[in-house]
Amino acid sequence: MRIEIVNTGTELLIGDVINTNAAWLGQRLVELGLNVERCTTVPDGIAIELALREACMRADVVIVTGGLGPTSDDVSREAAAAVFGLPLDLDDGVLRDLEEFFAKRGKIVNEHNRRQAMVPRGGVVLPNPNGTAPGLFLPAELGKKNNLSCAVFLLPGPPRELKPMMVGHVEPCLRELKMAAASSRRLGDGRLEAAATLEVWECRYFKFTGLGESDISMALQGDLEKIAGLEIGFCIGKGDVDVRLSGSGAAMAQAAKLCFAKLGEFLVSDDRRLIEQVVVDMLQERGQWVATAESCTGGFIAHRITNVPGASNVLAHGFVTYGNGAKTQHLLVPAGLIAEHGAVSAPVVAAMAEGCLRVSGADHAMAVSGIAGPGGGSEAKPVGTVFIALASKGHEVVVRRRWFRGEREWFKTLTSQSALDFLRRRLCGYEIPE
Amino acid sequence: MRIEIVNTGTELLIGDVINTNAAWLGQRLVELGLNVERCTTVPDGIAIELALREACMRADVVIVTGGLGPTSDDVSREAAAAVFGLPLDLDDGVLRDLEEFFAKRGKIVNEHNRRQAMVPRGGVVLPNPNGTAPGLFLPAELGKKNNLSCAVFLLPGPPRELKPMMVGHVEPCLRELKMAAASSRRLGDGRLEAAATLEVWECRYFKFTGLGESDISMALQGDLEKIAGLEIGFCIGKGDVDVRLSGSGAAMAQAAKLCFAKLGEFLVSDDRRLIEQVVVDMLQERGQWVATAESCTGGFIAHRITNVPGASNVLAHGFVTYGNGAKTQHLLVPAGLIAEHGAVSAPVVAAMAEGCLRVSGADHAMAVSGIAGPGGGSEAKPVGTVFIALASKGHEVVVRRRWFRGEREWFKTLTSQSALDFLRRRLCGYEIPE
Repeated sequence: MRIEIVNTGTELLIGDVINTNAAWLGQRLVELGLNVERCTTVPDGIAIELALREACMRADVVIVTGGLGPTSDDVSREAAAAVFGLPLDLDDGVLRDLEEFFAKRGKIVNEHNRRQAMVPRGGVVLPNPNGTAPGLFLPAELGKKNNLSCAVFLLPGPPRELKPMMVGHVEPCLRELKMAAASSRRLGDGRLEAAATLEVWECRYFKFTGLGESDISMALQGDLEKIAGLEIGFCIGKGDVDVRLSGSGAAMAQAAKLCFAKLGEFLVSDDRRLIEQVVVDMLQERGQWVATAESCTGGFIAHRITNVPGASNVLAHGFVTYGNGAKTQHLLVPAGLIAEHGAVSAPVVAAMAEGCLRVSGADHAMAVSGIAGPGGGSEAKPVGTVFIALASKGHEVVVRRRWFRGEREWFKTLTSQSALDFLRRRLCGYEIPE
Repeated sequence: MRIEIVNTGTELLIGDVINTNAAWLGQRLVELGLNVERCTTVPDGIAIELALREACMRADVVIVTGGLGPTSDDVSREAAAAVFGLPLDLDDGVLRDLEEFFAKRGKIVNEHNRRQAMVPRGGVVLPNPNGTAPGLFLPAELGKKNNLSCAVFLLPGPPRELKPMMVGHVEPCLRELKMAAASSRRLGDGRLEAAATLEVWECRYFKFTGLGESDISMALQGDLEKIAGLEIGFCIGKGDVDVRLSGSGAAMAQAAKLCFAKLGEFLVSDDRRLIEQVVVDMLQERGQWVATAESCTGGFIAHRITNVPGASNVLAHGFVTYGNGAKTQHLLVPAGLIAEHGAVSAPVVAAMAEGCLRVSGADHAMAVSGIAGPGGGSEAKPVGTVFIALASKGHEVVVRRRWFRGEREWFKTLTSQSALDFLRRRLCGYEIPE
């Protein structure tokens, strides 16, 4: 099954927005055992129609992203209707949804929004609970009149609208199309190609943290490559690395065993959960609480933890003690300790963690203080220097010095990742590396 | 001058690597006053030749990234030679550079690496001090034999090799091509089109918040479209909308006036600054401080503020009071008030803001409490309900109810955006909408 993606949006071509949709869709399709053969990005407007027409001539399925908004340069609906040779009808159901969406916000549907209720005749509406632009599915049969035999999905551009629609509506449909394609081939030439495509094909992501990509590939790749039929991919995340493995059930079992045996201590999850999710899940299982005392990360650790549904069962208190006075006032850090060692120092960060544990009554408290930059560095403590402490009931407080180079947000990401990993290690019973 | 980009690499299509090169190249080209008309991503191997041939038929300049490595699926050199109908010669200069590069690392040039010294006859080698793959420039004249009139640049895929080559070699060359194109048009038809392309071309982003994309387009688009030569684009951000305007200096001045006059109150910035940056800048100018008291956003507001360099001059205290006890203990919210109204209520959030102002000694305090979901909603207060309060010295505390649907992180994004906008409005002297 030949698949192409057409991404629309001038913002992608002039570099205002990085095209993350293409990569995300590629990942999802790989997991279905499908490969994207081409991805074309075109600006808003007339270029969409041409690119879509070309893609439909080459592919069996085309996924279009973007161009479903209310403004005049959003023309994906019109382009698809033109390529398929279909009229556009006002869809009452979509219009009602739009009216409801706006009514809840005390607004009425204006002329521009009304365009979003137009549907190429025969197209299937894909509901969008996260925005005003519904998606559309045009089955291949609809294009017969124009000598096309290609199914088209139109998805909204914003990732938070696109992703649930892809998972909830497009993927089930693609699975069916794949089965149909395989069985029609089987009937056609009797070579049972279908058996290969329909075999149980697993795809798993082993997420590691605390090691670089090359460390992980040095440790694993040689042995993984010896497993017959296993496909291996590495993908660097934000402070973690995914090893994507796919293959038959037997190959996967062997590969999983290897990952656990060789690097189990660095393994965050084998089911795509981020470290904050893993930590919240473990705390919840044990009925334990964590509190945060953040200087340089400015609330980012608490933010990551509270991104996980159910976080309110494990976190009640968090402090952003950006100023020295705040460290003394809320975390009971002695002012003299700060004066003696500086706010970015092992004793102060240890005291922050211990104070946070005491004040919050939690079971674990994380504290960080460092120099996020661009200013504030010195020779002894250059920009990127950070101290991370973990205090847990019944344990000695642990404090470690790290050095994370990069821009402010990257520094905050790596620091928060490390702090969360300290807690993961404590909960798993692993040492916290020097 | 029509420009296309061809990105090569299976890793881009299966989503192991996000295509940041396309966005970066787009930004650089916009700064030269050039627009990318299409960007095509193809896997390694044979697909490159087809995509390059198509692009060369449409464009004046094609930039190819990747496919210059030593392995057998790196075939950009061969594809370009085939499209132009040129033989490949071993280039002694490139071979010498390669030998030197490997000698420094105690290695010799093997058969695979030798391929990197092959150059389509007549092509110009672009040196690569950061890797083994030199870039190549094929001037448009070379393609005459095959009826092409398109210049092609081949650049290495890794950003740290591509970027310096683009800046150092490709951009100077593009500037010359642009000048030549403009002057040949001028000579050819005497209509001085060149004047337009070489005229000062401005591009500005008007960032709005508190209005939807369609509200903004309803208010502005009609009048903006009347301004001759103005290009308009809309781009939805995370809680804000960018209106991208480009055109001559005169058109831009007229457009800017219009944006200010019609929607000045909703205008965050006209220089791409995010709202957190705008707020930090305004506070810093006035020597004022802000503190945060966050329940449902879990530290995200403080995180956004502290993403701005220099935030330590305006924020010293932040609280993540996720539990009711934390609200009472740190923000002095009377326990009875929470018992009576619930933690997600106007009186409690107002008390959080006032307590935060008092405890922190700041000039402004923001407080939020809401139901991020997926659980915790009720009929009276469904998931997505949030109260946002702003307390400022010398002002009555303001508290507003909002309803933001979507996943947890989206809810946090919109809530934090609103809270920051309350402060922006206060600092600018605008009312805070009901």
